[in-house]
Amino acid sequence: MTELGVTQQLAQWAANLKGGDIPAPVRAEGLRTFVNWLGCAVGGADHETVDRAVAAIKLFSGPAQASVIGRSERFDALHTALLNGISSHVLDYDDTHLKTIIHPAGPVASALLAVAEWRGMSGADFLTALIAGIEAECRIGNCVYPDHYDRGWHITGTAGVFGAAIAVGRLLKLDEKKMTWALGIAATQASGLREMFGTMCKSLHPGHAAQNGAMAAFLAEAGFDSSERGIEAPRGFANVLSTKQDYNEILGGLGTTWEAGLNSYKPFACGIVIHPAIDGCQQLHRELGPRVKEIASVQLRTHPLVLELTGKKTPKTGLEGKFSVYHAAATALLHDDGSPTAFTDQRVADPEIIALRDRVEATADQNVHEASVAITLRMKDGTTIERWVERAIGSIERPLSNDEIDVKFSRQSALVIGEAATAKLLATAWKLEELPDVAGFGAAAQPAKSAAA
Amino acid sequence: MTELGVTQQLAQWAANLKGGDIPAPVRAEGLRTFVNWLGCAVGGADHETVDRAVAAIKLFSGPAQASVIGRSERFDALHTALLNGISSHVLDYDDTHLKTIIHPAGPVASALLAVAEWRGMSGADFLTALIAGIEAECRIGNCVYPDHYDRGWHITGTAGVFGAAIAVGRLLKLDEKKMTWALGIAATQASGLREMFGTMCKSLHPGHAAQNGAMAAFLAEAGFDSSERGIEAPRGFANVLSTKQDYNEILGGLGTTWEAGLNSYKPFACGIVIHPAIDGCQQLHRELGPRVKEIASVQLRTHPLVLELTGKKTPKTGLEGKFSVYHAAATALLHDDGSPTAFTDQRVADPEIIALRDRVEATADQNVHEASVAITLRMKDGTTIERWVERAIGSIERPLSNDEIDVKFSRQSALVIGEAATAKLLATAWKLEELPDVAGFGAAAQPAKSAAA
Repeated sequence: MTELGVTQQLAQWAANLKGGDIPAPVRAEGLRTFVNWLGCAVGGADHETVDRAVAAIKLFSGPAQASVIGRSERFDALHTALLNGISSHVLDYDDTHLKTIIHPAGPVASALLAVAEWRGMSGADFLTALIAGIEAECRIGNCVYPDHYDRGWHITGTAGVFGAAIAVGRLLKLDEKKMTWALGIAATQASGLREMFGTMCKSLHPGHAAQNGAMAAFLAEAGFDSSERGIEAPRGFANVLSTKQDYNEILGGLGTTWEAGLNSYKPFACGIVIHPAIDGCQQLHRELGPRVKEIASVQLRTHPLVLELTGKKTPKTGLEGKFSVYHAAATALLHDDGSPTAFTDQRVADPEIIALRDRVEATADQNVHEASVAITLRMKDGTTIERWVERAIGSIERPLSNDEIDVKFSRQSALVIGEAATAKLLATAWKLEELPDVAGFGAAAQPAKSAAA
Repeated sequence: MTELGVTQQLAQWAANLKGGDIPAPVRAEGLRTFVNWLGCAVGGADHETVDRAVAAIKLFSGPAQASVIGRSERFDALHTALLNGISSHVLDYDDTHLKTIIHPAGPVASALLAVAEWRGMSGADFLTALIAGIEAECRIGNCVYPDHYDRGWHITGTAGVFGAAIAVGRLLKLDEKKMTWALGIAATQASGLREMFGTMCKSLHPGHAAQNGAMAAFLAEAGFDSSERGIEAPRGFANVLSTKQDYNEILGGLGTTWEAGLNSYKPFACGIVIHPAIDGCQQLHRELGPRVKEIASVQLRTHPLVLELTGKKTPKTGLEGKFSVYHAAATALLHDDGSPTAFTDQRVADPEIIALRDRVEATADQNVHEASVAITLRMKDGTTIERWVERAIGSIERPLSNDEIDVKFSRQSALVIGEAATAKLLATAWKLEELPDVAGFGAAAQPAKSAAA
């Protein structure tokens, strides 16, 4: 008997996992992950990026198997998975596995809910499949991070396709062999370049991972085979897409320690790396009151990744604003805002914000933790104000409470589907595990006007 | 004015190319490429790999926009592109750009014909779009080859997606800006691992490239944007997926020297690297006649890539047989065969072939060209016979004639759609440039029984 490889062992675990094997705190975190994802998918659903994708997809969609979350359209499950993945990520407001900067739910929940609406699945089984997919996705991410990410891969796309394959594979009740093939088919579709940050393609990545991962599961179900060592072979995923491969991150403690329990949720609608700056600037806004008009200049001392990822000096669009620590700091100081309204085209073009933004300076300091920032304000009267943020809100040490997740959900969702539908949807989402079937979420998340029509 | 980047310049060329800009010999080679591709797509259409993909795809297909070549099914154009890409490559019998080992037509023609059947396109415009796509695909391949391939990427998938995007982008008459976005959307979907060789996923790669490249063009048409430096940016395609980047291979002589004119067509239904061995062994079969039974052992001296790619000592399936220079040499010596019938499960399990295969030895020699081989037969009476193949049939120096392409087309196609339909299809294919619309190919390539039904 040959010993099973990494891909085979992971597939074996994923195929055989029982809901009861997952500790209660991890299931609770999985539920928070689902609620946060659902709010983000509704919140991003009327974004222009989604509109444009819909315009292309409607030419090709198959049977109306599933509802695009937060919209009136129904498409085949794979195209719905793609669109849910785009909308849940387009505001950069989704969840984060902080060890890898993966946004775990986008690929996995987007694929799973689309297929589940069509095929039927209980809420409890849904949660188990979601956690299994996220666990595998984050462990594969850990195996190759940071080299893989540093090379230029958008890890939410490249690791996400595995998570989607596993979640949908569980819905299809794939056996170990077919689950192994699904992982191989996922591996050979892994893609997504960081060069696309700041364009519509960034949110295409989790969508594409959801669609391709789901397709991998359906192909495997149909007997379409692949290498059974898709992850670890010399020319498999980990070796081709990374210089680092630590397979113990995939198999070590599998089923006993849980990456899915380490998920975090953004309080702000942009990359996690500028959260400390926004947090600190919001604190200063609240302290200074009208005196924010008297700020002469702003100095930020940040982890180097902040400048690498969000160093755009002169953003032109709302989307580019998410990649500008300068814009984000100015908007938080002037308007106490880090929500989606802070990153509109209008805000980015606002002369008052631009004037302050141009007086924000940021320096990289390897000794500053990714969740920290040092802020120095120089006021027009020559005085200075210092602020040190040890850990930003939304970090593992300062997680959002369930109530804060509710507020975040409601603020996004109400703008798209109205307050009444939002309240109902949110209450149902928290009851996920009690639902005999998850198929109702699509209809419950439709915009008010189309629900009324 | 900023100087245009590599991606922008390539898009500008592709968007503005006129049919008359392409020299007659290159158009003639493009026509040979199309005919060879069509024969391969028909020939592979009833393969189990395609059956299994169809079983998954039929769950999700949209409107019946296009005919799967060589089959009775009609699916939406994107899924048809995927299936045409699989069937044209599944027998490993398609075309080869020898500098990069790209199989150029698979991604490009598969996408273009599927969309053209739906939207309509003249044969002359089709040929121009096909050549534009192949030219870009091979130039992008040259830019990163060999490092990209050596790292483990299946270059037909990774470079092919660009070619499909450009060909379909021309059909959609994308302007320069949208063609640039289409290339960016293609770049961020580039995928396909060499680990999958010997499994059904190998032929998924050109199919997936066709589907994703076509989708990139439709997304760009709908205004879905991307980076405008998808190929050359620090975190773009070439830097992330390769250690070598030679952009002069993309832009140097663009429009004056033509990679699309360098395409070649396989006489044998397996990887190009074992063609010299099969060619030499067939020559020996014809000379030895019944004395092939008296071969005691076979020695091959080959380019190192032969063993790296086709070094399987004990293949178990027909598909694995394509990756065994040992099986290929034994079958050519005993049966004069290198066609699809040489690589069936039955042939691979044939005891007589196994007995000779186990007495084939191969050694790598860096000084032997990829298109050459040295063969030494040791006979049971102790004598030896030597054979040197300087350039194998199907190489640039010994290309298949149009008549040989006809024979190859007819042998494959007749098995799937019958001789009468094959003769008609082949005659129409050579008249591509005279056709007011290419939409008829799908119906003309249907299997006899479904055409009669």
